[in-house]
Parts: sequence; structure tokens; C-alpha cells
Amino acid sequence: MKTRRSFLQKASASALAMSLPAFPMFSLTKESETYFDFQEVKPLRVAIMGLGSYGKRVADAMKDCKRAKLVGLVSGTPSKVESWKKEFGIEDKNCYNYQNFDQIKNNPDIDAVYVITPNGLHKEHAIRTAKAGKHVICEKPMATTAADAAEMVSVCEQAGVKLLIGYRMHFEANTLEVVRKRKAGEFGEIKFFQGLSGFIIGDPTQWRLDPVLSGGGAMMDIGIYSINGARYMIGEEPLWVTAQEVKTDPVKFKEGIDETITFQMGFPNGVVASCLSTYSMNYLDKFFLNGTKGFAEMQPSTGYGPIEGRTHQGPLTNPHVTHQTTQMDEMAAMILDGKQAEIPVDGREGLKDMKIIEAIFEAVKTGQRVDLV
Amino acid sequence: MKTRRSFLQKASASALAMSLPAFPMFSLTKESETYFDFQEVKPLRVAIMGLGSYGKRVADAMKDCKRAKLVGLVSGTPSKVESWKKEFGIEDKNCYNYQNFDQIKNNPDIDAVYVITPNGLHKEHAIRTAKAGKHVICEKPMATTAADAAEMVSVCEQAGVKLLIGYRMHFEANTLEVVRKRKAGEFGEIKFFQGLSGFIIGDPTQWRLDPVLSGGGAMMDIGIYSINGARYMIGEEPLWVTAQEVKTDPVKFKEGIDETITFQMGFPNGVVASCLSTYSMNYLDKFFLNGTKGFAEMQPSTGYGPIEGRTHQGPLTNPHVTHQTTQMDEMAAMILDGKQAEIPVDGREGLKDMKIIEAIFEAVKTGQRVDLV
Repeated sequence: MKTRRSFLQKASASALAMSLPAFPMFSLTKESETYFDFQEVKPLRVAIMGLGSYGKRVADAMKDCKRAKLVGLVSGTPSKVESWKKEFGIEDKNCYNYQNFDQIKNNPDIDAVYVITPNGLHKEHAIRTAKAGKHVICEKPMATTAADAAEMVSVCEQAGVKLLIGYRMHFEANTLEVVRKRKAGEFGEIKFFQGLSGFIIGDPTQWRLDPVLSGGGAMMDIGIYSINGARYMIGEEPLWVTAQEVKTDPVKFKEGIDETITFQMGFPNGVVASCLSTYSMNYLDKFFLNGTKGFAEMQPSTGYGPIEGRTHQGPLTNPHVTHQTTQMDEMAAMILDGKQAEIPVDGREGLKDMKIIEAIFEAVKTGQRVDLV
Repeated sequence: MKTRRSFLQKASASALAMSLPAFPMFSLTKESETYFDFQEVKPLRVAIMGLGSYGKRVADAMKDCKRAKLVGLVSGTPSKVESWKKEFGIEDKNCYNYQNFDQIKNNPDIDAVYVITPNGLHKEHAIRTAKAGKHVICEKPMATTAADAAEMVSVCEQAGVKLLIGYRMHFEANTLEVVRKRKAGEFGEIKFFQGLSGFIIGDPTQWRLDPVLSGGGAMMDIGIYSINGARYMIGEEPLWVTAQEVKTDPVKFKEGIDETITFQMGFPNGVVASCLSTYSMNYLDKFFLNGTKGFAEMQPSTGYGPIEGRTHQGPLTNPHVTHQTTQMDEMAAMILDGKQAEIPVDGREGLKDMKIIEAIFEAVKTGQRVDLV
């Protein structure tokens, strides 16, 4: 079966590329949208764990997926399960709570679980998913410590399941275009990256402001975009970090919840990334990559809407596609077909960001430069 | 005479403001350009010391000045003096070299000397000018150390002459508009400033790359724009600095010549300024001021050409006037009429930047945060 499915998938992808049906077993009269027939090309069947606002965003985005399909739910709130079941047409047998979740191992109709629970629960939820033999897609940050992240990587590898982190920007067309231009040398030698990530966070009672559930403040939630962005934009791994913290509202931003951190990362080729992570400013979400022959600047650079910007050659014009739709289709291809992401999204990629976050926290605490290698 | 001149200046300024001539002693038939008649309103009569490329830029810009007039030259290169004399119509008696310069004290036709020599010579040249009883306009950085800068301030005060630093941006219309908006609270509470200052420096033999003459590399020359810009954009004085240096070309950028430094400044209200100073990148010259209610971003922010940018309210649209023309007219008004600059440009202002530069160099050296107060 697996062989046949792979064969059909390759055939259909190839047919689309040529705009011609390659095999008579596909109906020539079908609309192109139904060309990937779920009867023929089985989708990645996903359960979402954590029915919060981001989970809802992913579920909505998946309505337009061609390779991934929302088929299951995991939640501790029965009322949410009820309303989602109706909205997304989920079968009762694919709905779980945190008590009976481990029984998912006996469910042949779910391939992967997308863990979209608070950061502090990712490790437990990812490991339970892996131990149930299901592939893990885990929202970022993948954990609250590098040690937890490393354990997740190890458990998933032992369980023989994929561990993918929800780095949706790694599939976004304008982002990929900039990365391809950098790889092609169109910016010359890269010299500088700047990432300004942040927003004014609202409701002070939300889990993101609870250090146990979040593992940190702005850095875990939004600063990670500048960390990760620096890495994929520059194309190297940082050697050191320095960081400075400012806290103007210690009531809203308790001990363990960073409000504003400026941080710098030094790279082997002499590039410095100068970044901002904050929960108390809007008008940010800017990336700037600067090289000897040109530059790219993007704003918004990581928001949910269209990614806009320009290089020295002109504006970035790839049409916007809902990021989570692309992400889930691409992750389906990675899990089902073994497709490689242009920019890695696996657990080891997520672990790199976790190590940098820990180094930044240490640099804040000690006031010293922290070496990463 | 002084009283009468001041009276006429006020009268003419007032008349211009109303677009009506106020006094019959002014000819009503004159073109507006000749309205400020040098017969009636004596200009600030300036000698330029140092006939290099920036001196030439200032001299050219002064052709359009209404209150300042280039009348004298100081140079060690007779051939330069000859060609400038012809181009700018300078009298022989107003030309000096570094040997006979101190005789300028006996010249009643020169009011001020604009010191545009290499940084390492500013102190000596400013002090000789002050001791000759002439007002000092000194290019930035005003000196190569804070101690020298403090001595310059002190000597000029004792000599009863003005000491003004060539901060041309302090008179630039779009810059002033942003500062006025900030003061009026239009950006809300200020939270962040970013200044990216730099360019790829050319000729490796120039004095700017000689540590004795320059006192430093990119920081003294171009990084100072981000330091100074942070201060006037934020409207506070920094409490601390941190800094990180990267040197990729130790041949071009010798010991004592910084190539690239990222630095951060913390301000009393919790604002952090995150800045870049470099001699090995183009595509910079960006300012970004961010507040709780809005922002300003400018690029170019300090270049010689038009300053462009926008706030959350829309683009900055003040017409470009050659910065050095405005600067010299405004400085003439400051010296002749006691007019106050909207953003200070005096020696004490320059000294503040020098102290910050020294702190940045110390932060680079020690890897520690350096407190400024």
C-alpha cells in the first residue's frame, strides 16, 4: 500500500508540474482542486491538541489543505470539543481528553498530533504522542528548556516518529525567496541581520504570562522569531550571544517573564545579528539582512498576514497564502513522502533555538557574553 | 552699532514672518533674496580651517547662506589656498597657515573659525581659535577623548567665545519635525530607538583610518550619528552602554580603528537604543523611533542628501535644504543674536557624545556594561 501511495503521489505531482495528467487512472474531467483525490492520495490525518486561539487558526487554515486533514481533537474542555466537532466534522472516536489520550495508539485513523498547548506542556504532550506511535508536530518554542527539547528529540527518534516544529515561516514564499537569493550570493557577503520582534501583549491573566506554563516571556513567544530568523537569513549558527534586559512593568511581567530584551548574536563569518524581543511595543516585526552587494528588508516579517518587503532588486511579490495551510501541506509531504524542507523544521532545529534562548537568559543574568560552542 | 543691528535683524525677521516690510528704511522693491542686506544685517564672517572634502562641502553650501559668509581660509597647503581664494573670492589678508594662524586675533573681519581638520587636531585648533578671540565651530567628533573635549569647553568659556559643534542634523527640517512630534507626545511613551550608521570606507590611506588623527574608526566618524541621534530622538541621556565589536579586516582596520561595533544604550525611562556603527556596510543610515502610540522611521536619516521617512501619521515631507547651508545660517543666528538651537549643538552637547563613545570603547574592551552616571 505504502509503495502504491508513494507512486501515485509522485505521479500526480509530476502530472501537475506538466499540467497534464500522466496516468489514465486519474479522471481527465476532474477540476484541478480535486485532482489530489483523497481516495487516491491519502492525506496526513492530524489531530490538534490544545483548542485555543492558535489551534483554531491552524484548524481553519487546514480547511484549504490538499495534503493534510484535520481528523481529531485533544482537549480538556468538553464544550470546546463539542463545538469543534460540529464545525470541523470530526468523528467522536477521534476525540480525546488528557486522561484517555494515550489510547490514540489504537486509532489507525490518526497519523500525527499537532501539539498546540502551552509551552510548559509541550514536552509531556510530545512524548506521549511519540509513545503512542504518532508523528509529532509541536508548536514553537518546542519546550521551555534545551534539556527538555533534547529529550523530546531523543524520544521521538527512538519511537521512530517524526518531530516537526511549527516554524511556519520556513515555508513562506517571500521568506524562501530571500533565503534563496542569499544562497545564490545576490546579497554578496552577508554582514548584518536585524530582527525586531514584539507586540504589546494584552490579557495579563493568559498562560503566556505565567512562567510555569510559558517558560519565559516575550523571548519564548516572539523573540524566537528573531533568533530563528537570524539563523535562516544568515545561514550560519551563532557562536556567541550578549543580551540586555529592561523591565518597565514588573507587575504584568513577573519574575521569569521577560518583557524586553535586546540581544546580539555573533556568527562565524563576522556577521552580527542585533535583535529585539518585547511584549511592550507594537510597530515591529522587521527583518533586515545586509550584505556587501545588497539587502533584504521585510515588514511584516513573521506576522500571520502577508509578508512584505523588498530587496535592493525590488519588492517581494509572491502572493500570500495562509501560512498554516502551506505549513501543514508541506509537513504532510515531509511525513508521507520524506520531502525535505528547504529550511529545517525538525526537532534538532528547534533544539538549536532553545539553546540560544537559554544562552540569552544566561547573558542577561550574568551580563557576560555567552559562548554557544 | 550692535543694538542697531539687532534691532534691524528683529525687524526684518518679523517683517518676513508677516510677509510685509515693517520699516520704510528697507527698500520695498528689492527681491526677497536681497531683503537681508549684508549692508544692514552683518553676516557671521567665517574662516574655514582645513580645506579637505568636507571643508569644500561646507564652503559650497555657504554660497547660499543668508546670515553666514565665508571670508577666510586656514590651510597648510598653499595650492589649496590659491584655488579656494579664486573660487570663493577670499581676500589675501584673510588667509592663514598653521604657523601664522594665531595672528587671526588681529583680524577684525573674521568672527568665527570652522575647524574641519582631522579629529586628532580639533583640540589644538579649537583652543588656538578661542585664544585668538574668535568663535569656534568644530566638526564632530569635537575631539578624540572626553578629557580633550572638556578642556575645549572650558577654554572657550574662559575666552568668552562660543563653541558650537557641527551637528548639522540638529537643524534639519524632517529631523526637527520628528523631535517636535515626540515632544508633543504624538508617539506616546517612547520605548525603543534603533540607529544603523555606516558605510564601506574607501581609500585605506586616509586620515580617518589613522588612529592618531582619527581617534577611532567608524564610531568616531559615523557611529556618533546613532549615539547623538538616540539622544535627540529619545530626549533623554543614557544611563549605561553595552557594546560588541567585530573586526573582519585587521589590515585595513588597524589597532585603534574600530570596524563594526553594535552597541546598546539604556535610558532612564526604560528605553533601549540598539545601534550599529560600521565601516564595512552600505545600505544603512536608518533611524527608527518607537513609542506606545506611534513611530518614526527615517532612511536616509543622517546622509548629506534629503532626509526621508515617515511616521505612523504619514510621510515626512519637509523640502530638502542643503544641511550645511541651514546649519551655518542657524549658527550665525546663535552667535550674532543669541538664538537658541532647538537641539543643542554647543560644546557641552559634543562632550556628552564623547563620554558615551569612551564608554562604548570601554564596554567593548571589558565586555561589561558601563554605567555613565
